[in-house]
Amino acid sequence: MSEPAVVTAAILVIGNEILSGRTQDANVKFLATGLNEAGVRLKEVRVVPDDEVEIIEAVHALRKKYDYLFTTGGIGPTHDDITAATMAKAFGVRLLRHPEAVERIRVQCERAGIELNEARLRMANIPEGAELVENTVSGAPGFRMENVYVLAGVPMIVEAMFASLRHELTGGAPVMSRALSVRLGEGTIAPLLTEVQDRYGDVDIGSYPSYRAGKFGVSVVCRTADAARLEACIAELDAGLRELGGTPEEEDLG
Amino acid sequence: MSEPAVVTAAILVIGNEILSGRTQDANVKFLATGLNEAGVRLKEVRVVPDDEVEIIEAVHALRKKYDYLFTTGGIGPTHDDITAATMAKAFGVRLLRHPEAVERIRVQCERAGIELNEARLRMANIPEGAELVENTVSGAPGFRMENVYVLAGVPMIVEAMFASLRHELTGGAPVMSRALSVRLGEGTIAPLLTEVQDRYGDVDIGSYPSYRAGKFGVSVVCRTADAARLEACIAELDAGLRELGGTPEEEDLG
Repeated sequence: MSEPAVVTAAILVIGNEILSGRTQDANVKFLATGLNEAGVRLKEVRVVPDDEVEIIEAVHALRKKYDYLFTTGGIGPTHDDITAATMAKAFGVRLLRHPEAVERIRVQCERAGIELNEARLRMANIPEGAELVENTVSGAPGFRMENVYVLAGVPMIVEAMFASLRHELTGGAPVMSRALSVRLGEGTIAPLLTEVQDRYGDVDIGSYPSYRAGKFGVSVVCRTADAARLEACIAELDAGLRELGGTPEEEDLG
Repeated sequence: MSEPAVVTAAILVIGNEILSGRTQDANVKFLATGLNEAGVRLKEVRVVPDDEVEIIEAVHALRKKYDYLFTTGGIGPTHDDITAATMAKAFGVRLLRHPEAVERIRVQCERAGIELNEARLRMANIPEGAELVENTVSGAPGFRMENVYVLAGVPMIVEAMFASLRHELTGGAPVMSRALSVRLGEGTIAPLLTEVQDRYGDVDIGSYPSYRAGKFGVSVVCRTADAARLEACIAELDAGLRELGGTPEEEDLG
């Protein structure tokens, strides 16, 4: 059997509001989970301000390094929404009013009983050559330029856009994961984890301490694209944790 | 009056668990808020895997570009905690067992009635020349190398470490912010925002749509280090939004 191809992605969050601490990002966790299910491994996230130079630099770096890049934020109708114009600059193409995007925004305005003004039409300005990404929530589309998907910032719209583009993604073997949680200290289980990790080089074993109800516990998460190895690794960890006096419980990762 | 100095920072999140979608990051919002209050502007965030090459590349890029870099995650006792060793490599120094760190971990183990084993002592391995950052929650310290603060990943410990290091930060003028929320569409208020932003180039005006109870609304956030300009800008926006038929309400940003 040949090694399954690894397909990678990055996310670029364009958002002063995340950097100021005003807003808690909610899109990374959603996209990370969805990409993983599609067999695409999220390898990096960057958050940059609404700044043309910073955005262009990050787009170039990330889209070269990974198979896919997803951006979130900055495609609305206001002065601080500079993503579409910036993306056109990054790709060296013109920003054009896209007739199909105009139509979708027009229909949405009519439905909502709001005026189709110049600000709203600005959301139909799309880099030349881009494919639209459907927005079933509020009409104004995202778009794809080569390997870069440009999405909204509002989580509900990001989710709708991802649902509409997911079938376009070519993933590799999806990574499966299982996790055991146990009320033992990380320092207590560390030698066991090292020993099992040494024998399961193809399984990514992570140890994540938590602090609940005044006691430290730990989640041991195993990730691999090989179902049989995953099961064997979890079984060894379970036995080892019991030997250390723990009562490991399988976590629901759904 | 001379322009107040702008002091900048970046955060590097070291965490497979964020990239897999398993964990929702909680440290960025906390640190962003705390830094802002200290007069330090968070300009970039990166999330990278527990991978030596990726961490070193990001540390070099970010610590050169910004005044401060804060890393979170990867300083525990298990095999996947590679931050301290990687940081020593990044700075070209040795990783040494730090006597004061050993003592703090020993005291904590004694207090908690747990064994001071080799895995726990591993948390006392600190790059040569680093200053310790106190951890009042679980003993094992973070550390500072030049302009890089290396913190834990568990939010409660990050908060404790930030509290203990905050007095060391040299900030510029703190950015103040005020926000109005209004039940108008972004497309409706966009021309007003553009017009006010043109006259208040020194105020950063951001527009953030939200979707609550089935209706779109928008938060208009103004940020600047100049209190008088902030007040004037908010007053103009308030008047303009009322002219457009809205009933703006001041948001509590605390």
